[in-house]
Amino acid sequence: MSEKYVEMYKSLGMNIEKHNILLDALGQFYSSIYLTQKSRPKKMDYFDFVVSEIHGLRIKELNDLRAQGKKVVGAFCVYAPEEIAYAAEASMVGLCGGADFSVPDAEAILPRSLCPLIKSFYGFKLNGTCPYFESSDLVVGETTCDGKKKVYELLNDLIPTYVLEIPHKPDTQQGKEFWFKELEAFKAKIEQLTGNKITAEKLKDSIELINNKRKALQRLSDLRANSPSPISGLDALLIYQISFNDDPKRFTAKVNELCDELEERVRNGVGVADKDATRLLVSGCPMAIPNWKLHSIVQATGATIVAEESCVGTRLFSDLVEPKGDSIDDLLWALVEKYSKIPCACFTPNDRRIKSIQSLAKQFKADGIIYYTLQNCHDYNVESVKVDRAMKAQDLPMLKIETDYTMGDAPQIQTRVEAFLEIIQGKKQA
Amino acid sequence: MSEKYVEMYKSLGMNIEKHNILLDALGQFYSSIYLTQKSRPKKMDYFDFVVSEIHGLRIKELNDLRAQGKKVVGAFCVYAPEEIAYAAEASMVGLCGGADFSVPDAEAILPRSLCPLIKSFYGFKLNGTCPYFESSDLVVGETTCDGKKKVYELLNDLIPTYVLEIPHKPDTQQGKEFWFKELEAFKAKIEQLTGNKITAEKLKDSIELINNKRKALQRLSDLRANSPSPISGLDALLIYQISFNDDPKRFTAKVNELCDELEERVRNGVGVADKDATRLLVSGCPMAIPNWKLHSIVQATGATIVAEESCVGTRLFSDLVEPKGDSIDDLLWALVEKYSKIPCACFTPNDRRIKSIQSLAKQFKADGIIYYTLQNCHDYNVESVKVDRAMKAQDLPMLKIETDYTMGDAPQIQTRVEAFLEIIQGKKQA
Repeated sequence: MSEKYVEMYKSLGMNIEKHNILLDALGQFYSSIYLTQKSRPKKMDYFDFVVSEIHGLRIKELNDLRAQGKKVVGAFCVYAPEEIAYAAEASMVGLCGGADFSVPDAEAILPRSLCPLIKSFYGFKLNGTCPYFESSDLVVGETTCDGKKKVYELLNDLIPTYVLEIPHKPDTQQGKEFWFKELEAFKAKIEQLTGNKITAEKLKDSIELINNKRKALQRLSDLRANSPSPISGLDALLIYQISFNDDPKRFTAKVNELCDELEERVRNGVGVADKDATRLLVSGCPMAIPNWKLHSIVQATGATIVAEESCVGTRLFSDLVEPKGDSIDDLLWALVEKYSKIPCACFTPNDRRIKSIQSLAKQFKADGIIYYTLQNCHDYNVESVKVDRAMKAQDLPMLKIETDYTMGDAPQIQTRVEAFLEIIQGKKQA
Repeated sequence: MSEKYVEMYKSLGMNIEKHNILLDALGQFYSSIYLTQKSRPKKMDYFDFVVSEIHGLRIKELNDLRAQGKKVVGAFCVYAPEEIAYAAEASMVGLCGGADFSVPDAEAILPRSLCPLIKSFYGFKLNGTCPYFESSDLVVGETTCDGKKKVYELLNDLIPTYVLEIPHKPDTQQGKEFWFKELEAFKAKIEQLTGNKITAEKLKDSIELINNKRKALQRLSDLRANSPSPISGLDALLIYQISFNDDPKRFTAKVNELCDELEERVRNGVGVADKDATRLLVSGCPMAIPNWKLHSIVQATGATIVAEESCVGTRLFSDLVEPKGDSIDDLLWALVEKYSKIPCACFTPNDRRIKSIQSLAKQFKADGIIYYTLQNCHDYNVESVKVDRAMKAQDLPMLKIETDYTMGDAPQIQTRVEAFLEIIQGKKQA
């Protein structure tokens, strides 16, 4: 792949040599984790292809759009309102931040005590190996955590970075009004960037575009509630990850095609594991591509991950934007209402998340919860205390895993997961 | 002291035995660090007395007020608007959070990767050894960092905790309007707690009360700019710390009395160190009482700390509340304007802090900066990158110290400070 796109990478100012090392490692990692899975749906072909071209064809598409005068906005978070970008004919893409590869570069400047996701993305910009960064005309950050918020200031020295402020008490009237004004300011910024006026009509269309993506992901997610699940946790996670990078319209169509096949599988009782395999719900920090660490460890034990209560999971698609009118204000208010329902741990209090975990555990017939937190992520780390208490009250077993992107602790995590599965088995038999 | 107040402690539901251990340790620590200093101003007598009675007479005062129906509000942060509490005849006091003593208790529940201040305060509430917690009718928290924000949720299970949201982009119009509404909501909360209506007149009086405290602290701070400084860094830090706990009116008078003596000292050329002692500015995280670690290490080297760019330092008193009118709205807006000038690292961007450090370095004729950050405080830790770049650009030597409340790394810090002082000496002689 690299040879084919080397001129493009050069024109983007990337570090070609280092990028080649990354691509080789990723290709091998993907093959060993993904392509060795048994009983995969055929329609995963498309997503395998997307991964194989994630630093190739997709980057070419984005830069072809840029050559036509369109803009690309890079983002990190489900609170970055895609609808506003697409309403101005800009594309929004997720930036690299899921690999340990770039962490040492970041640690030359940043404190080591930050979470791996932050160090990873800053390192990717520093070392010039993320073509999404190099294809972005603007980065949109948000104030969802201290670490990101402060590193965006440093990122802004390397690439124009706009920070959208997210209120942390989501249910106050003043917080929602503030959020509305922040969206208005972001809309003005995007209009200025693109030179395109965001009309109510265009915003309505882009709301539909992104809602359709969410509906397809909901359909996929709901299918995983079947026993046996017709798709592996690794494959579903991959699709959620790709949703941040692919063209939304094409992606939606491909997810729906896959869902047609999965429905067929369900009718025929075809699944990816035994009917009595342990079903696990993962809840916590986002897993940016290519962070497949926990899923690959869990899947190797024979257990099935049936849902992710995560920003690369249910928080991404659980609610739709539902305008109550046709004016720009109605549409922006609908965005505020939708985004303030996403139960990120940046919110205080965040009881909505506990309710969401409880409801997902029921819907997906989960036998247990794996609480996943990235090292030094204070929000998710502290919130685990309340989640743990709520799960204990419901007698739902929970295992907390705190980890980074390195593989050093993988054997230890595997041992802990196996012990957890034994506890669940013991509980089932009791 | 403990014997005298044992009935009071019992009535507050404190853990008497554990509290005795704490008091013994604190007494010894204070004696060895503070009372061994040479050339102390006589008027430090009052502050020595306050420390000796900080868990005694002051707690009795607060509970005598409570017996009269008055309320006590506990707080952690300079963004907690004292003016609003005092306008409703409530007292505001700083809560315990500066000692390692309570950290192990907190770590039984909280992640270890939180900053020591957060673990310390939560541990103090858990183990029942902080009489300020046990005398508070309400705790007012704020959203200045992820760790505090999320731990306040857990604290609220132990003591009523109200969280004031602080916008993180301080200079946007929408952020200031939001802050205004948050202050209105806090005012309503305090009115409900106390049963007292906050009139414009009362708020104006309390603004004056707290402004007078700030003016006295500014006066004290300005005196430290003299060479030699008439007061030690340890003593000045102690006074800033006590400002969170003492009665504001009495405290103001006592600080002014001390300043009279310090002015006399300046006239007579009396100081706490040689005229050519290295002068250091400390900048960074707050040092809650009894966190005297860095100051005692630095002072033992012979260098003088002349200012603290900190919430227990200049951020506490640098600006006054200056209303532009007499209505409640005018007064609340004046609070917004004042508080949004405090350059906490929770703000993004926070260029105001860099300007403040530069200006303080000049005013206090600092030879170097010690950047002080508590472990796992992402805000101050990441912001050190920008501060370091700004100091380098001005050729101002900076040493970054990242530490917690334990004394294990004290010898290492001492060695680093000594090496830093040598660099400064070398630079002076060059």
